[in-house]
Amino acid sequence: MLPEEVTEYLALHRQEHLEKLFEVLRFPSISSQSAYEADSLACAEHIAEHLRGLGFSAELHPWRKHPIILARSTPEIADPSAPTVLFYAHYDVQPPDPVDLWTSGPFEPTIRDGAIYARGASDDKGLLMSCINGCEAFIRTVGRLPMNVLFFFEGEEEIGSPELEDFITATADDLKSDFAVVTDMGFFAPGFPTIMTGLRGLVYLELTLNGPSADLHSGQHGGAVVNPLNALAKMIAAMHDETGSVTLPGFYDDVVEPESVELEQWKSLPFDEGEYADFVGTALVGGERGRSVLERRWSRPTLDCNGITGGYQGQGAKTVLPACATAKISMRLVPNQRPEKVLDAFSEFVSANTPAGIRANVEVLSRSRPFVVSPDTPAVGAVGEAMREAFGAETALARAGGSVPISELIQRVLKVDPIVTGFALPDDNIHSPNERLQLEQFHTGAVAAAAMLNNLAGLK
Amino acid sequence: MLPEEVTEYLALHRQEHLEKLFEVLRFPSISSQSAYEADSLACAEHIAEHLRGLGFSAELHPWRKHPIILARSTPEIADPSAPTVLFYAHYDVQPPDPVDLWTSGPFEPTIRDGAIYARGASDDKGLLMSCINGCEAFIRTVGRLPMNVLFFFEGEEEIGSPELEDFITATADDLKSDFAVVTDMGFFAPGFPTIMTGLRGLVYLELTLNGPSADLHSGQHGGAVVNPLNALAKMIAAMHDETGSVTLPGFYDDVVEPESVELEQWKSLPFDEGEYADFVGTALVGGERGRSVLERRWSRPTLDCNGITGGYQGQGAKTVLPACATAKISMRLVPNQRPEKVLDAFSEFVSANTPAGIRANVEVLSRSRPFVVSPDTPAVGAVGEAMREAFGAETALARAGGSVPISELIQRVLKVDPIVTGFALPDDNIHSPNERLQLEQFHTGAVAAAAMLNNLAGLK
Repeated sequence: MLPEEVTEYLALHRQEHLEKLFEVLRFPSISSQSAYEADSLACAEHIAEHLRGLGFSAELHPWRKHPIILARSTPEIADPSAPTVLFYAHYDVQPPDPVDLWTSGPFEPTIRDGAIYARGASDDKGLLMSCINGCEAFIRTVGRLPMNVLFFFEGEEEIGSPELEDFITATADDLKSDFAVVTDMGFFAPGFPTIMTGLRGLVYLELTLNGPSADLHSGQHGGAVVNPLNALAKMIAAMHDETGSVTLPGFYDDVVEPESVELEQWKSLPFDEGEYADFVGTALVGGERGRSVLERRWSRPTLDCNGITGGYQGQGAKTVLPACATAKISMRLVPNQRPEKVLDAFSEFVSANTPAGIRANVEVLSRSRPFVVSPDTPAVGAVGEAMREAFGAETALARAGGSVPISELIQRVLKVDPIVTGFALPDDNIHSPNERLQLEQFHTGAVAAAAMLNNLAGLK
Repeated sequence: MLPEEVTEYLALHRQEHLEKLFEVLRFPSISSQSAYEADSLACAEHIAEHLRGLGFSAELHPWRKHPIILARSTPEIADPSAPTVLFYAHYDVQPPDPVDLWTSGPFEPTIRDGAIYARGASDDKGLLMSCINGCEAFIRTVGRLPMNVLFFFEGEEEIGSPELEDFITATADDLKSDFAVVTDMGFFAPGFPTIMTGLRGLVYLELTLNGPSADLHSGQHGGAVVNPLNALAKMIAAMHDETGSVTLPGFYDDVVEPESVELEQWKSLPFDEGEYADFVGTALVGGERGRSVLERRWSRPTLDCNGITGGYQGQGAKTVLPACATAKISMRLVPNQRPEKVLDAFSEFVSANTPAGIRANVEVLSRSRPFVVSPDTPAVGAVGEAMREAFGAETALARAGGSVPISELIQRVLKVDPIVTGFALPDDNIHSPNERLQLEQFHTGAVAAAAMLNNLAGLK
């Protein structure tokens, strides 16, 4: 059990921890837009400085455009011979668009109705700070951590952690850990602390179709040339068949169905299709026919268009035949699909479906493999128990449809089964306007993080 | 024949006429964007003031968002008992996007390689000014015009002249004319002055598909709900069949084929498919199979997507399932298709093809009927002869694929067959970056306009 002084400390320092979080939330650390590189760097430096103040040896490792923060407990705050847990979180955020739908500024954190509203509140700066706060409570009360802690805070998760495998591989010796906890997820439902035993992988790409050498007048030339927008619509439409299945060649070949035990567990989760439909605001008729909603979200691969741009986008009418049109397309992958094989299938499909008069180009923006961990892993039990202690409810085992690329890399490269969990709630509007984190989840998350240290330390 | 002093005057005043045109080109009179309403009004006032200086009674008639300029020759400059010709042109322009592809600013007129570069140079401010200059030459030399002139300059042509029919109907008595010349077109080829005996009509609309009540994370929710972007692609793709024909119910029912005489004429035009393909920069494989390129551009209806907007459009990746997606779609109509019937067919198609989980909305932005005039009309001969005199080459009879809504309204409401012509060249980049008008076309266009007055006056 967690020492009482640790929980007391966290209860007494809520206001201070909130202020520290607000400082971090104010940085517009948007990793997908180069205009914000300086803000991201400033955010990383700010977090590293805070960790140094707690007794960690925090360093920024330049990587691509946004540094990775590695912070290790020093002998002053942890016994060097004790086991080590790697805590992963990310300090970068999604773009806030559409900005006009936010009630308060995305980078002006605001408390409303018991929640912190800001871009990154629940994905993932709030969770990152909860983990730090859990450590701080041990350091400031007991005097030292129950085990060594290695923080791994990334700045490019929201763009798919490109090339992160190279970094992990190159620094594998430094990253050697006994346990790993990835806090970039949330509860399955309010009151249901959750560990995700599976995540989907991701391939994200941009498909561009080029037709005429310049924009043309649609009256003068309409009917003579192939319109890239019409061609793009046709190509995207052909990527699904009438049953909602993806038509890329061999797309489902490597898909492994979940164990029947796992499917049974999912049926016992507090998931009400009607409530979920109300939440998303539309009928649950996407994806493959004949599969349950949770299967479609967790264990079935998808192909979605995340953006289309082409032609005239302003107010009113412009009679233009655009020279080109682009689509951002992502595919969510499940075990044992491989990004490379799926990308080959995509390119093959595009080649076979490009009409005369059009030149197609595919640019890969990110890729990550899917991830699964066995529910029997001892660390699953230890972290699950820590969540139960902090939040006062049994920890559910589920999967998630999103991608946290580090999870699969930790497992494959570092040979440690990471425990993927977190403190966000399903209606926290992550990636959407008015992202938020409930105050209670933020503060109790710190208690949970402290309990994880306590319980994982007891495993070895 | 045109009095020699008139052509001499025009030769001597080229610099002055160029400066006057530049003044008009500097107004960003973009009719589709409400931010430019004041600029449009200023442009109209500037033109009206210039006409007053020449002896016209020019008035701005408030209409929707951009006034219509009506300017009539006073008894000081024309015999009230002489016949009247209505000259139509428009002072509004297309948006300049994409602005970064312009070599010089779209509203900073610049001379390069013998051409005037600016948005509106050839569509339609340059032509508008040539017509005024032709009149000016008569007034300043002969002392009066050979016939009465009524200028009708519109400010909403580029948004499809919405509700213009109401204006024409309400002011039909004032607009009563013996002849009408619509100068919003160009040469079929350099050295080939042209009269357009047919124009396509237009229906322009915005189709919006709404799905989830807010943007969703494509990992968490992908597979559960229908993605409005994927649905939009599918719906647009279904609007054409494999032969390039439009699939809207009854779309081709009212289409009248051109007379075989007309088709024969088109074959004699200096049209080289290879050169045209080089010009547009892509293969000529759009539109309906089994139809010639000129048929597909002039006498066959089309359906084109002019813009798609939805999801994330910025740099890099954002894993979003958008709440909605929109497409701007236009259809070019040919005799005897009717906008209302085509719109009904479109709505019927959308209703029949809207999947579960999606709510569709169609907003009509503009509509105009197709237009044809007989090559035997006497005014066709008089205007064709004027063009021949000015440009020194026989006038060709062709059609155009674009829409100038006024043409059909003049014919149907005012009961006058308008002669549709102009001085632009096919490679003037109208509606595209780097729009231009050749200096020679601008100046000789004024000679042609003067010759039209002379020749039309001789008909009655």
